[in-house]
Amino acid sequence: IAAFDDLDAVQTFAKSCDVLSYEFENIPLATIDHASQFCQVYPDVHALKTSQDRLLEKTFLRDTARIPVVPFFPIESLSALRRAANNLGYPVILKTRRFGYDGKGQIALKDVYDLKSGFARLGGTDLIAEGYAPFRREFSIIAVRGQNGQIKTYPLTENVHKDHRLHTSIAPANDPQNIGKKAHEITTTILEALDYVGVIGVEFFELPGGEILVNEIAPRVHNSGHWTMDAGCTSQFENHIRAICGLPLGDTTPTHKVRMTNLIGNDIQQAQTLASQENTFVHDYHKAEIRPGRKMGHVNRIYPEGNV
Amino acid sequence: IAAFDDLDAVQTFAKSCDVLSYEFENIPLATIDHASQFCQVYPDVHALKTSQDRLLEKTFLRDTARIPVVPFFPIESLSALRRAANNLGYPVILKTRRFGYDGKGQIALKDVYDLKSGFARLGGTDLIAEGYAPFRREFSIIAVRGQNGQIKTYPLTENVHKDHRLHTSIAPANDPQNIGKKAHEITTTILEALDYVGVIGVEFFELPGGEILVNEIAPRVHNSGHWTMDAGCTSQFENHIRAICGLPLGDTTPTHKVRMTNLIGNDIQQAQTLASQENTFVHDYHKAEIRPGRKMGHVNRIYPEGNV
Repeated sequence: IAAFDDLDAVQTFAKSCDVLSYEFENIPLATIDHASQFCQVYPDVHALKTSQDRLLEKTFLRDTARIPVVPFFPIESLSALRRAANNLGYPVILKTRRFGYDGKGQIALKDVYDLKSGFARLGGTDLIAEGYAPFRREFSIIAVRGQNGQIKTYPLTENVHKDHRLHTSIAPANDPQNIGKKAHEITTTILEALDYVGVIGVEFFELPGGEILVNEIAPRVHNSGHWTMDAGCTSQFENHIRAICGLPLGDTTPTHKVRMTNLIGNDIQQAQTLASQENTFVHDYHKAEIRPGRKMGHVNRIYPEGNV
Repeated sequence: IAAFDDLDAVQTFAKSCDVLSYEFENIPLATIDHASQFCQVYPDVHALKTSQDRLLEKTFLRDTARIPVVPFFPIESLSALRRAANNLGYPVILKTRRFGYDGKGQIALKDVYDLKSGFARLGGTDLIAEGYAPFRREFSIIAVRGQNGQIKTYPLTENVHKDHRLHTSIAPANDPQNIGKKAHEITTTILEALDYVGVIGVEFFELPGGEILVNEIAPRVHNSGHWTMDAGCTSQFENHIRAICGLPLGDTTPTHKVRMTNLIGNDIQQAQTLASQENTFVHDYHKAEIRPGRKMGHVNRIYPEGNV
């Protein structure tokens, strides 16, 4: 245990490891860069750098992988924000380039009068302005790529957010328009363009016309993949470990439909009641303190008969 | 970490616990008895005492629980063994009362000429002679009883042994003669007669006429219940923890058929190949050394279509 910027400790630790991974993307790039000199690190520093910065991420998606995303502009000045707003129209979604999650680090600017205050509130530097995507539904794909380039993808998952936080995920998603096929192709393109090793989460918006955009990518196991723990296939956690260790990847086909529901704040108090219900699997993170809005656990409910 | 007979260490440890359990029955009774003075211990010392001694176990089953078992006699002398053999007929199965597992601590005596050498080989004291059960198939029931007396049972499991070691378990068992009903009733009777808390494994012989006998009981999670880890229900391990902690018990109904196969000795070298097959879940115990006959792991294969 040491601070991320204690590079001597990072070096000693990395030298004692065969392979190293991480569970969230807001880890300093210098830490992972340094560790990479002494052991294998997956996902590699390039994938981490790309996905921890919304501007680099969207630029990579649009220009390198040639994947549809919302229009966006880097914002380093109020005048740049005014120009971007003229181009994007309202609402403008203004975000910090880094350290955002669960709706933190972003503001919807409704009209020209919001620009100045929004710009100041997010710190006035290292920002990105995005066009608003009038999405109909949200989906994700969890996928895994091995050291040898083998790729396995879990089926399309539909996600419902409440208060900017993931609330439920259903897999396989109801997909009458077969957007899953396109989403899987995009995911494969991203994994190969990044020469990625490990599990990735790719979030999609479905627009009213059926078109899909990539919202963001997460270089790690993903909350919308927690259903894989109880779906009769290899869990995303196990497949991540398999991938970074050079083991063959496990089956990603679920045996039945699953609904994952996050237990937020006081929801965790239902854990015992839920755990006694049939086909129900409760995962309590055993966090020391309940706080409103905090993800305290999740529950997977399986549907052997097929209908969620 | 301390020796089982270091009762001061046992006391200090037990005082630091809310509840205490154990994973095998060959733990000294005095250790559990002492620990029980300082915290809750499940299964309790009475259940442990009964199940770690084949003579007490069979006496309990026959006389207290009134459950069918093979005829048996305590053996403390060669003359007692001769009398028992006259009564039981051959082969006589001579066993040590304690510390037997996987066929260790038992000998089949084929005729009167085997008696003396067999008696000496097993140490000449603390023995039990049993009649031979010409069983057709072997089954087990894994069940769990909570602190409040709630009982949940997993379905009948069929077990195949090789070289006296469990090789495969299939659940739910093919059960055309519905012996499962009787086996479940017997299991419930045992749990209640012992006022038992935790998971128990009860092993059965099916005789050619369809009659069933209890072979033995194990006061713990059981190898023939390892399929519960990947069956779409609460695993025996989780239900044991729920029971001893006073939590509601979890669903014991599997979502599909499962076959568990032990990985013995060099079998573990197939782990990676097996792990890349569909519907297949490998559990590697990561033992430091492969030895012939040693249980190194197990693999669960699920059959969503129903047929094993």
